[in-house]
Amino acid sequence: MILAFLSDFGLKDPYVGIVKAVMLGINPALQIVDISHQIAPQNVMEGSFVLGSAFREFPIGTTFLNVVDPGVGSQRIGLLAVTEHYTFLAPDNGLLSMVFRYSPKVTCFSIENSQYFRHPVSNTFHGRDIFAPVAAHLTRGVAPHSFGPSCRSPVRFQWPEPIVKDQYIEGEVIYIDGFGNLVLNVSADLLRHRRPIRKQFRINIKGMELSLLNTYSDVARGETAALIGSYGYLEVAVNQGSAAEVLAAGVGVPVVIR
Amino acid sequence: MILAFLSDFGLKDPYVGIVKAVMLGINPALQIVDISHQIAPQNVMEGSFVLGSAFREFPIGTTFLNVVDPGVGSQRIGLLAVTEHYTFLAPDNGLLSMVFRYSPKVTCFSIENSQYFRHPVSNTFHGRDIFAPVAAHLTRGVAPHSFGPSCRSPVRFQWPEPIVKDQYIEGEVIYIDGFGNLVLNVSADLLRHRRPIRKQFRINIKGMELSLLNTYSDVARGETAALIGSYGYLEVAVNQGSAAEVLAAGVGVPVVIR
Amino acid sequence: MILAFLSDFGLKDPYVGIVKAVMLGINPALQIVDISHQIAPQNVMEGSFVLGSAFREFPIGTTFLNVVDPGVGSQRIGLLAVTEHYTFLAPDNGLLSMVFRYSPKVTCFSIENSQYFRHPVSNTFHGRDIFAPVAAHLTRGVAPHSFGPSCRSPVRFQWPEPIVKDQYIEGEVIYIDGFGNLVLNVSADLLRHRRPIRKQFRINIKGMELSLLNTYSDVARGETAALIGSYGYLEVAVNQGSAAEVLAAGVGVPVVIR
Repeated sequence: MILAFLSDFGLKDPYVGIVKAVMLGINPALQIVDISHQIAPQNVMEGSFVLGSAFREFPIGTTFLNVVDPGVGSQRIGLLAVTEHYTFLAPDNGLLSMVFRYSPKVTCFSIENSQYFRHPVSNTFHGRDIFAPVAAHLTRGVAPHSFGPSCRSPVRFQWPEPIVKDQYIEGEVIYIDGFGNLVLNVSADLLRHRRPIRKQFRINIKGMELSLLNTYSDVARGETAALIGSYGYLEVAVNQGSAAEVLAAGVGVPVVIR
Repeated sequence: MILAFLSDFGLKDPYVGIVKAVMLGINPALQIVDISHQIAPQNVMEGSFVLGSAFREFPIGTTFLNVVDPGVGSQRIGLLAVTEHYTFLAPDNGLLSMVFRYSPKVTCFSIENSQYFRHPVSNTFHGRDIFAPVAAHLTRGVAPHSFGPSCRSPVRFQWPEPIVKDQYIEGEVIYIDGFGNLVLNVSADLLRHRRPIRKQFRINIKGMELSLLNTYSDVARGETAALIGSYGYLEVAVNQGSAAEVLAAGVGVPVVIR
Repeated sequence: MILAFLSDFGLKDPYVGIVKAVMLGINPALQIVDISHQIAPQNVMEGSFVLGSAFREFPIGTTFLNVVDPGVGSQRIGLLAVTEHYTFLAPDNGLLSMVFRYSPKVTCFSIENSQYFRHPVSNTFHGRDIFAPVAAHLTRGVAPHSFGPSCRSPVRFQWPEPIVKDQYIEGEVIYIDGFGNLVLNVSADLLRHRRPIRKQFRINIKGMELSLLNTYSDVARGETAALIGSYGYLEVAVNQGSAAEVLAAGVGVPVVIR
């Protein structure tokens, strides 16, 4: 039984190990796979993007534990979301937005049944006290509705959508990966349906004009390229370097594709 | 069989993987859970605090391998400590101080029986050559006394204790977590027994006076708060920011609670 | 069945988790051990050194998945290398150079049989689309020759060899570990065969002259030492500090041993 785990806990503190310890104490047969624990602290949007990019690669039946939780201890509820193939746990703060976007059928429950919690429940570490034990009991076969009532309208935020015109597309940077590649909100599908010959695209960002290439090594070391990246979106990259540094570009920087 | 692993090896070098490889070569059934490998290099006190905060969350029967070892290759002995619920391996340099503090009954052995070592034993990597194979053999059922003679007085250092007066408590910062939260040597229990209404506490640090709140989001983004943190100690935190940076505060900074 | 995994993916992005998800979808019984995912981006030489230092510690039968791949999407082939004790997957770019150096008998195959790939195959993430599924099928018992034809001359680069004279050895820094220790291309074996009393060696680097010591704590805190490190090579280290910082030394800095 695979349990995939994403958080902003970082790897210095014992928080990740503690959450795993609590889960393994309840279900010793769990096989835990880390997605990331280096989501920028409390950055729900970044966590949502990383989770949304990863979850469909996991085997059917995987349970996903997700904790990026700036509102821990407040009134926000804990969410249990069941899709056709997977189950997700997360604070109800938008962290599952990308999951909802790619999952046609979702049933949500509000995690309220304290019988499955670790006690006493702290105000600062629901990953350990609520989400971990609930995830572990869930993987042992406890039915989702046992954890609480249905939840009709979980929080989901809107991703900035590209503006699509006849002559151009206006997009923006939505994520910067660990290599410094700039991921844009322009999907491979959007480009594919637009023109048969994708090499004709011209990408404008921060005064530079780039062609759409096939892979990083199509340009010389240190040169900037635009290509369809591993996330399935248009990316601006520097071959063997960081586009974020070279272009001094962050999330929200506008891009025009002609 | 769970083996929890803490070190200051970092994650760039293959040291963590090598130690795991040695253990799995002896006991392939081990389930290894990382506590942290980003303890500040050779910082035994930090390692002791992180271990002390994590170990009680693990299932009974867990074996803990701990390597923060500035004296590797010197005359310091290797320690095997058996408590009521757990077993610990560590250099005898104070790394188990917090474990001893929370474990009423401890039996210690000096790791000396080279029959269980990996040979040749280096002067620089006892994690691989001594602790890993001993841990793996231990989890396969070799009795603790097989590894060496009893050890009567393992090294333990004193944590700075808060000064508790009628009118105030003087504490200090003892740990900074990965979010930049300042953890103080003032436990939730100490405060709980002191006054029934904890909101009345006033916390003074670096010229700021803070109230004791329930959780991070009780203050606005960027504001400083004092609260009982996940470690079970009083913490000074900045909502969605780093208190260590905002207050320019490090380990040892004094705090007064009235 | 142990699968050891090395890459330059870093730990912020979900790439490591995605590769594991693909493998566990094909072979759920895999026990995955991380060697490192913090190889400097696209630094094949560093990856080769770290892998070369680690692989012989793993149990016989281990499969190694290695992805440091600046040429992803270009014409470079994917390599499957079978040695007496282990199996390796890597792009054919020199990443296995140190493995070849320590493995007398190697049989290589070019990974070409797309029946075992994840489709569609991207131009940017062969770790997920080619290496992961091939590794997983391999560990399920598919014969190496099933993945493609023999490959006669895989890429291997030459490591800078020390110049060995009667009166001195000229070496250089080939790797900097996570503690800032400077690893030299002068092996313990080379020194051992040279003089019976190794304490007589004098090591000159950046205007400093050092004696060869036994371990870090043979010098005071903050002092510089030369010693045989955990990699089995001569290292220059600062006790409880970073030699790379203190000496402002990087890869390629020359060293003379007399």
